[in-house]
Amino acid sequence: MASMISAKDVLDLNERFYRALEQNDLTAMEAIWSHDDHVRCVHPGWAMLVGWEEVRKSWRDIFETDTTMKFVITDISSFSDGNLAWVTCTENITTISEAEMGVAAAQSTNIFRRIDGQWKMVIHHASPVPTTVIDHEDSRIA
Amino acid sequence: MASMISAKDVLDLNERFYRALEQNDLTAMEAIWSHDDHVRCVHPGWAMLVGWEEVRKSWRDIFETDTTMKFVITDISSFSDGNLAWVTCTENITTISEAEMGVAAAQSTNIFRRIDGQWKMVIHHASPVPTTVIDHEDSRIA
Repeated sequence: MASMISAKDVLDLNERFYRALEQNDLTAMEAIWSHDDHVRCVHPGWAMLVGWEEVRKSWRDIFETDTTMKFVITDISSFSDGNLAWVTCTENITTISEAEMGVAAAQSTNIFRRIDGQWKMVIHHASPVPTTVIDHEDSRIA
Repeated sequence: MASMISAKDVLDLNERFYRALEQNDLTAMEAIWSHDDHVRCVHPGWAMLVGWEEVRKSWRDIFETDTTMKFVITDISSFSDGNLAWVTCTENITTISEAEMGVAAAQSTNIFRRIDGQWKMVIHHASPVPTTVIDHEDSRIA
């Protein structure tokens, strides 16, 4: 029987995902995800993307915009059993583009699966949650 | 080693959940969910609910409104490994109250876990997705 993954290692997988996201790092994102037809990805407010090709294309498109995103991850909870593990967390997102900055929050469920001894992301499901409304006039970068 | 759950049985678990939801059946919902602190539930647009007590209260509150919901589930995909299984699907929702009816769609990730030989829901994460806007004046029930 395969060894259990530790809670720390599950959180490290999750951390690696958000670091790739913050750094607009498509190569890191490719290494994090499973590349099969079974993967699913829901960006906040998007329809579900099905299969690695669609998911990869979405990250490429997101990383090609001029917006930088910073993530503070809170309310983290992890769980594992056998070859599956997941993290639920709140993403506190600051977006910074040339014109302005904004804040948003999303709830995320991230599922990882051990495939041939390697842990890979197979589902990322993020959905918008109510957050404090900020005054965009005030928050605009000078 | 515990036997694998069949794809059909995973879909049956999912179907049972939506039947309980349609029927405003809190007793059925209680039987479907694991009752521990680890469960998580995100209703479309809500913040994440943590632990069975919060989750149960949300279903009770939802079931106490005068709104009836009908679900047509599409884009169903299921997966299982060992003691965990999940379904991703699109919920096509028709809401009917005294005053009006509406349509909505949500993407859902539903995770089930085998605990002491019984399969229980441990995560329901549903998020709103763009859908066709309908004219509420025209759709109002006569």
